[in-house]
Parts: sequence; structure tokens; C-alpha cells
Amino acid sequence: MIPSISYITLGVEDLARSVAFYHDVFGWPTDGIIGTEFEHGAVVFFKLDKGITFALWPRTSIAHDAGIACGPRDPSGLLLAHNVGSHAEVDQIMAQLQSGGADIKKPAQPLFWGGYGGLIADPDGHLWEIVYNPHR
Amino acid sequence: MIPSISYITLGVEDLARSVAFYHDVFGWPTDGIIGTEFEHGAVVFFKLDKGITFALWPRTSIAHDAGIACGPRDPSGLLLAHNVGSHAEVDQIMAQLQSGGADIKKPAQPLFWGGYGGLIADPDGHLWEIVYNPHR
Repeated sequence: MIPSISYITLGVEDLARSVAFYHDVFGWPTDGIIGTEFEHGAVVFFKLDKGITFALWPRTSIAHDAGIACGPRDPSGLLLAHNVGSHAEVDQIMAQLQSGGADIKKPAQPLFWGGYGGLIADPDGHLWEIVYNPHR
Repeated sequence: MIPSISYITLGVEDLARSVAFYHDVFGWPTDGIIGTEFEHGAVVFFKLDKGITFALWPRTSIAHDAGIACGPRDPSGLLLAHNVGSHAEVDQIMAQLQSGGADIKKPAQPLFWGGYGGLIADPDGHLWEIVYNPHR
């Protein structure tokens, strides 16, 4: 099993709200909600760099697919990172996200390991770190 | 903000249990737990293809970092996919994961959109789809 992840799918409460967030606030291109002709088919895809696909799918659809219960949300289970090339880029993106209404969890600041970054939450509480890693 | 994710960090209950799962059952190379000299620093990194890093970090560390509560786990919030090149590869990996003790949520089967895949859960319930997409 080669070390590879090809799709990262977030479970969300409200697909329209989430696509608005990632399209309008992050500024990521997408064709929007597709697959509505299928039961549990409604989904949103964003093509990322490196051939990775980021997707949004209702939590209820993920729970149905896996035959699990859909309990209260738990944002402590995941942290996604968006790395950028400088302190200034971190500050610029954090300002862009804040003005778009993102929930700022930690303002941009120096990190103990030598990096610089901040944390935001999407409308479902999914956490993102916007971060500069000088060692990378 | 370019469409990019550089780190995918899963929040876990027991770092040693999770590193054993991803190292021994998935078979992914790692240096194991590092950073234990720092408070909330203990973490595990796996270098994936395409320059992506997959990380394991205690849920309590993520919650502390983001200043959020660490509630009950919610596996409906995330689905990661590992795409492979054929039906046979899906079957082989699902068998490998099952024999390693992975929790099989959905045996490999044809999917409504034309693919073929199965679902497993890691020790924290994080969901993985092992999947072949003939359209990709």
C-alpha cells in the first residue's frame, strides 16, 4: 500500500453553506454541487494542486455510506494545513479569511517549532492552519 | 489562496496505537513518535507521495492548540480515499487491512458511480475508502 491519499472529503451539515465558504472565502474554483440526481449523491469537488481532490459531502451521506451513527460534530479529529511561502502570505490570507467571516481560532503568531501561522474553523468547525514553515 | 493542502493531521486518542496501525497495517514508513520534549509536541509524520504529509496528533493537543473542547469522536466528519489502479488491488488491500485487524465498514463492492471500493475505519473511527475509479 503506497503512502498516498487521493481524496480528502469533509462531512458537512449544509452543502450550500460549505461550498460558499470554500469558493467565496478561500477562493477555490469548483463546479459546485453535483450528483443531486442520486440518493446521497450530492457532493462538491475542488481540484487541488498535486492531483489531490478536496470534496464536501453531507455528514449524513458519509454516515449512511459507512453504516455509522452521525453524532455531534468533533473538530478535534482533524487539522488541515495550507502552507505558504512567507509570514506576509500568512498574514494576508488570515486577513482575507477573517474579512470573509471565517471563525478565527488562533491569530497568526510565531509557533514553538519555528514556524508562523494561525488557525481558522470552517462553518462546520473543521480546522485549518495557515502556516509558513521556514524549514520546509 | 491557491487550492492546496500540505498537511493532513488526524486527531487520535492513543498515539502509539495509531502509529502501529498506520505503520504495521497500512505499511507506511515513519520515524515514529517525535517531539515528546515539548508540551503537546508529540506527533507522528508520514511522508506521502506528491509532497503531502500525513500526521497523527492527539485530539487533546489539537483541541488545546485551537482552544476548543474535545468532545466525543465523530467519524462522519471525514472520509479519506486511497485510490488504486484496479479491482484486484482494492481486493488485495482490503484483505491486507482486514487481516491486520482493521474495522471493515463496507466490504469491497461496485459503487453507484461506476467505481469499485470498500470502507475501513482506523482505531479512532477515521474512515478510509480503498477505491478504484475507472474514470480517473
